[in-house]
Amino acid sequence: MAQRKRYLFVCVNRRPEGTPKGSCAERGATEVHAALKMEINRRGLARTEVRACTASCVDVCWAGPAIAVEPDGYFYGRVTEADVPEIVDALVSGGRVERLVLPPEDFEMATAGPALSLPLVPRPAEPGREGGV
Amino acid sequence: MAQRKRYLFVCVNRRPEGTPKGSCAERGATEVHAALKMEINRRGLARTEVRACTASCVDVCWAGPAIAVEPDGYFYGRVTEADVPEIVDALVSGGRVERLVLPPEDFEMATAGPALSLPLVPRPAEPGREGGV
Repeated sequence: MAQRKRYLFVCVNRRPEGTPKGSCAERGATEVHAALKMEINRRGLARTEVRACTASCVDVCWAGPAIAVEPDGYFYGRVTEADVPEIVDALVSGGRVERLVLPPEDFEMATAGPALSLPLVPRPAEPGREGGV
Repeated sequence: MAQRKRYLFVCVNRRPEGTPKGSCAERGATEVHAALKMEINRRGLARTEVRACTASCVDVCWAGPAIAVEPDGYFYGRVTEADVPEIVDALVSGGRVERLVLPPEDFEMATAGPALSLPLVPRPAEPGREGGV
């Protein structure tokens, strides 16, 4: 099989339920990976262009589900299934989904600050989430 | 945590025993990954320099155990535990272990030829192949 132009390594690490740090799998990473594979196949990109693999913890737990986009060398963070078509569009066009890219400042803040308590990019309020069960 | 300079994605896919294609796990990939992690830790490289992750099938089955070295964008193939110190040496020096790097020709041959029957490194002529059954 051909070496693909890009490889997406989707962290699907799962920690025991209730672990404060949480995990990518707990936040839907397995479903994100499955959706990526399906979309890549559907568009006929699987054999030569891009391959979606699962990976063990990539240590971006504060922004999971996380995807290492290689060989470009950046991470997508907080990815949902809904983001998948846009991610594949970007692969095709040679661009990237900027709103999902984790900038270096995020890594620095995560290194310096408390582990997982805060979202690291501004985002709209999610009604119902704060008071969620 | 810091974004590491390099990520090693070690395929640890395991197929059922007896599958003709074999699998990286069957050929020792899990042990290779563990040895890499240990060596990276031992040399104090884990927090900033390099991270070794496991990955699902990277579709380099003909040369497993296989490792995607990112963001450099090449694969090591047929890696054994004995290769680990040399691989980490190369990471430190900014080089690579050339004898383990899978060249593009290998991918092409694997794509063109029968799946797993033959070694993909330079080899003597194969009499009988042209007139094969």
